[in-house]
Amino acid sequence: MSSETMPSLQCAVPFAESGSILLGHGSGGKLTARLIEDTIVPALSNPLLATLDDQVFVPIGSERVAFTTDSFVVTPIFFPGGDIGELAVNGTVNDLAMGGAVPRFLSLAFILEEGLPIAELERVLASVRRAADRAGVVVVTGDTKVVGRGSGDKIFVNTAGLGTPRAGVSMSARRIRPGDSILVSGTLGDHGMAILALREGLELEGDLVSDTAPLHGIVAAILDAFPDVHAMRDPTRGGIAATLVEIASRQRVGIEIEERAIPVKHAVRGACEIFGLDPMFVANEGKLVAFVPPEGEAAVLRAMRAHPLGRDAACIGRVTSSHGGTTLVRTAIGGQRALDLPFAEALPRIC
Amino acid sequence: MSSETMPSLQCAVPFAESGSILLGHGSGGKLTARLIEDTIVPALSNPLLATLDDQVFVPIGSERVAFTTDSFVVTPIFFPGGDIGELAVNGTVNDLAMGGAVPRFLSLAFILEEGLPIAELERVLASVRRAADRAGVVVVTGDTKVVGRGSGDKIFVNTAGLGTPRAGVSMSARRIRPGDSILVSGTLGDHGMAILALREGLELEGDLVSDTAPLHGIVAAILDAFPDVHAMRDPTRGGIAATLVEIASRQRVGIEIEERAIPVKHAVRGACEIFGLDPMFVANEGKLVAFVPPEGEAAVLRAMRAHPLGRDAACIGRVTSSHGGTTLVRTAIGGQRALDLPFAEALPRIC
Repeated sequence: MSSETMPSLQCAVPFAESGSILLGHGSGGKLTARLIEDTIVPALSNPLLATLDDQVFVPIGSERVAFTTDSFVVTPIFFPGGDIGELAVNGTVNDLAMGGAVPRFLSLAFILEEGLPIAELERVLASVRRAADRAGVVVVTGDTKVVGRGSGDKIFVNTAGLGTPRAGVSMSARRIRPGDSILVSGTLGDHGMAILALREGLELEGDLVSDTAPLHGIVAAILDAFPDVHAMRDPTRGGIAATLVEIASRQRVGIEIEERAIPVKHAVRGACEIFGLDPMFVANEGKLVAFVPPEGEAAVLRAMRAHPLGRDAACIGRVTSSHGGTTLVRTAIGGQRALDLPFAEALPRIC
Repeated sequence: MSSETMPSLQCAVPFAESGSILLGHGSGGKLTARLIEDTIVPALSNPLLATLDDQVFVPIGSERVAFTTDSFVVTPIFFPGGDIGELAVNGTVNDLAMGGAVPRFLSLAFILEEGLPIAELERVLASVRRAADRAGVVVVTGDTKVVGRGSGDKIFVNTAGLGTPRAGVSMSARRIRPGDSILVSGTLGDHGMAILALREGLELEGDLVSDTAPLHGIVAAILDAFPDVHAMRDPTRGGIAATLVEIASRQRVGIEIEERAIPVKHAVRGACEIFGLDPMFVANEGKLVAFVPPEGEAAVLRAMRAHPLGRDAACIGRVTSSHGGTTLVRTAIGGQRALDLPFAEALPRIC
């Protein structure tokens, strides 16, 4: 049963083809997937775009260059643990890193809303600079546009990134195979719940802080320990659920997840309970999920846990040859449910 | 007298440092230059960014890769002669071409406003595809975000582009020298007046049609004829005035322009008169200005005029060693005025 024909348990919104863009088209749920796969990719169809990995390798002369783009519309633009500037650098650095590329150069394009205090732009720029320095990338080209009040929202940022491939590394969702272990580099849901709690004015004991971080360092540590990782993804919009459902569906493999094995911070779990959310559906900005052949599992876990960004790394499940196209979650109380994307998810503008 | 200390004749808006982003920060006038030079570039300071050319060449392994980014917020998104999709492809293709690079790969990132008819997105996508095919580039990676009603305006598009350098060509504003001829590839002001007339509901005899076009072909023809062109620019936001004033000011050269020599379509001149605008300040999206040593002038003009996009090419002036930093315009009636950028220009969201 494919994810397209499987009844959704998460979402009671009746399906209606409105013919217009809905907020849900941007939330990493089913509508996002449909917009990309049914409207955008066919219109532009070409073999490189169709891989739908987070980055693409293009031939330039004798070199292969990793190339990616991401726009950031997070609201509010400043939040616990980061801001839109840091997110824009880390997000694109991570999209490059997920392909095993070494991030090198970024472009930076702003769409500013009239009335934005220049001091806020300066704060974002300082944050871009710090994040770029931390990630070892250089902002080499840029653009700035301004739109009138009510035609934008403070700051939108686009970063595109260039990177160089690591020798001997070939990661792509197409390499995922039954038997692969599914490893996450740390706790899930931190970024999304930090944003949501801030928006809703929720004050909780403990930390609700975005995990935004550049992942190229931990990726390098993993690949040094075990170069034959099949694929990596950073589970951003739609959380790890979106990543897993997409991979199961596109690669026609089964996925089995052990719910109890998923690392979630106490504060994040508490906030999820209050809002009725599952941490698997909540965005991360500093975590990766790796698909690793079984012989590499121990080495990759060790490498993750030895890195400051991977202390809470865990194996959360496995790729299977049965129930291809479907992600099954074994729940904490011993049941089993099929994971499906919500039609239109409840967390717009999370990144 | 530098453009910073020269009194502005074009703009009566009193200067006030409001501390907030104004529409004028995006219009290609003085505020744009200040925002970029005083706020953005210093915050990110690095030698590659500081060149402030339309594109940058970065080293990737043994290759040099041309890299550029541009966001497009034009309103309305459909206009006579083109739409935001075509503009987004041609704009980035042209930024690559202005450095003498052969455009190869594009990224494409949308920020969509809730409520946008999907049919309009499809129309823009089809236009992106046609423009990419025409320019010989491939859209290889992308991103889509959605914002709520009133937090965006229909469609914003970012394209970043990669290109390969042409052997034997080195173009940069830094190479502009006194004595260089200043050549334009055709009529000026077409794009800006097409947008403005549409917004204002002006109906004129004759054509008010955007000139949006990919310029890499005419650039190749020019460089085949004379490889040692010193610099090229596509005079978009702020028109050719912004390009000339910026170059005179940054490169500390003088520029002299013969107003009568500037090619302007009859309909554009008429519309400019109605709105009280000077075509030199109006955006172009399919024209280039080339700075050519005198021995190349005839060959470049011939090459331009032999190309379908350059039939109205003309020499409009010269770089001088006197009055460094200043652009002087000899007017049709024999007078002379110093060209200065308006503080905040009257044509927001023209591209």
